[in-house]
Amino acid sequence: MEQIIKLIENDLKKLEVSIEQLVTTKVGFIREIVHYIIKSGGKRIRPILVMLSSKLCGYEGDKHITYSAIVEFIHTSTLLHDDVVDNAKTRRGASTANIIWGNEASVLVGDFLYTKSFELMAEGDNFEIVKTMAHTTKQLSEGEILELLKTSDINTSEEDYFEIIGNKTAVLFSVACEVGAILGNVDKKKRLALKKYGYNLGMAFQLTDDMLDYNSYDEVLGKKVGTDLKEGKITLPLISAIKSATEKEKAVVQRVVEKSSITLKDFERVSAIIEKHGGIKYTSDRAMKYTNVAKDCLKVFEPSPFKDALLELPDYMYKRKT
Amino acid sequence: MEQIIKLIENDLKKLEVSIEQLVTTKVGFIREIVHYIIKSGGKRIRPILVMLSSKLCGYEGDKHITYSAIVEFIHTSTLLHDDVVDNAKTRRGASTANIIWGNEASVLVGDFLYTKSFELMAEGDNFEIVKTMAHTTKQLSEGEILELLKTSDINTSEEDYFEIIGNKTAVLFSVACEVGAILGNVDKKKRLALKKYGYNLGMAFQLTDDMLDYNSYDEVLGKKVGTDLKEGKITLPLISAIKSATEKEKAVVQRVVEKSSITLKDFERVSAIIEKHGGIKYTSDRAMKYTNVAKDCLKVFEPSPFKDALLELPDYMYKRKT
Repeated sequence: MEQIIKLIENDLKKLEVSIEQLVTTKVGFIREIVHYIIKSGGKRIRPILVMLSSKLCGYEGDKHITYSAIVEFIHTSTLLHDDVVDNAKTRRGASTANIIWGNEASVLVGDFLYTKSFELMAEGDNFEIVKTMAHTTKQLSEGEILELLKTSDINTSEEDYFEIIGNKTAVLFSVACEVGAILGNVDKKKRLALKKYGYNLGMAFQLTDDMLDYNSYDEVLGKKVGTDLKEGKITLPLISAIKSATEKEKAVVQRVVEKSSITLKDFERVSAIIEKHGGIKYTSDRAMKYTNVAKDCLKVFEPSPFKDALLELPDYMYKRKT
Repeated sequence: MEQIIKLIENDLKKLEVSIEQLVTTKVGFIREIVHYIIKSGGKRIRPILVMLSSKLCGYEGDKHITYSAIVEFIHTSTLLHDDVVDNAKTRRGASTANIIWGNEASVLVGDFLYTKSFELMAEGDNFEIVKTMAHTTKQLSEGEILELLKTSDINTSEEDYFEIIGNKTAVLFSVACEVGAILGNVDKKKRLALKKYGYNLGMAFQLTDDMLDYNSYDEVLGKKVGTDLKEGKITLPLISAIKSATEKEKAVVQRVVEKSSITLKDFERVSAIIEKHGGIKYTSDRAMKYTNVAKDCLKVFEPSPFKDALLELPDYMYKRKT
């Protein structure tokens, strides 16, 4: 990852300056809250995708910096609203914005970031990008709603799950890469390849995330492990385990999922059921599959350091512990 | 108002059909909640402005129906999020969406309507409209945040107040009219005139709304009178009264504003202070002023039934009891 970051070091620095400038409004409070959440250790994966993709496609301007900021803003809006919806207390090891400033501020500053993103897109004067991103943002919102509807539903199917993570996560990874392709003005085949690459990478990313939530430690992940279970989010490790679980085990899961607050013991019991039925391995295998498809998509591109970086990213994400 | 509605009867019918179609997504739940809030007796003022303005400017296509739906969707998103922020229980005499489906659903369906609006705008293939509306939506969001920051602050100035209502209300009225001008492809002067008309009408509308909140009855308004005071919203009737209130009166207001729930007696005490210092009259006079400016803006247009309707609207709004 260090090598990847080195490759786009200047762009990443410009991004931070750009973010600061773009959230400077006459309402000082907005800057404060956006600054807090956006500077609290996000990995900037989506901006990195815009940067690498645009450079892979030969783009030499600097509009990609603004689009990088836009995808990060959209991502941050969803985090702000998610934390309200999930009543989350911590993110990346720090208190969430809703805990510090209240749900009201999180809802409204999330709205500000959404609407600011659209304003920036419109000002970008590239209608193709506006259309693609507007469609994606609507999909994100549908993904969030689908997830809400499936909360605490242990009958959530694999199909539901993949639709949810496709909409709530993969489409934003995908559009980040597609924007790079549009900026670079490459042919349809390459644009589609990058779009597909981003989608598969996003799927692998979310699957790994959901696996780590059952399989990692507080200190490393910067969030309480078992968060998904606590919030009633039924993810693939659990969905796959439930398929072969006994009636008794299903009843245990059902009871835990319905509780308003779960204990460490609850978490351990559900984890044991997942472990017994191979839920972690199943999820990990699926993540690996998406990882390989992602890498495969890049075949249409000539060798370059940016291609190498994009090939390395999926492995890095798959192997990450945080 | 009946005459105005008759003039655009067909368009209004098309709008209702269009709204139904546009919120039909694979996620059935979205349709249910949007249907509930959008069909619960809204006056469709913003769509009416798009319709009358576009026809005044000679537009003969039917893209104005989609744009009418878009402004109504944006308005509805702000209502959904507002009700979460204000923890509102009723709107237009019925339970709010957050009471029926929870804050989570209101936040996410509000996001859906925002993002759906942007998707529709982008699909509309009129970049001028996309830019204008994206900028307006960001202003709306800033208005909401400013209002939140001034909650329960009895030192809120008149300047703050006008900035808040300008951003949270008037800009959407304004853009609704401007969209009509853009569709009709009129010259700059006429476009600016309609934009200004909408802005002034929006200011008059909000001033009247804030006045009615101290000066009307539950049955008529379809919402509890005193809602603003209860929610800590410091509006012009109170701001203007505080300027000439005694220290003792200010202390009364301060105490009430800080309470988490207010009694009828609290409301009556504050109302009496407002009445004594002419806060209702002051607000009403300001509303009348904006009403006149709005009407004056239309001078640049030739006589037409649509012009007559737009001239009638401000008076109708100013005189309304609900």
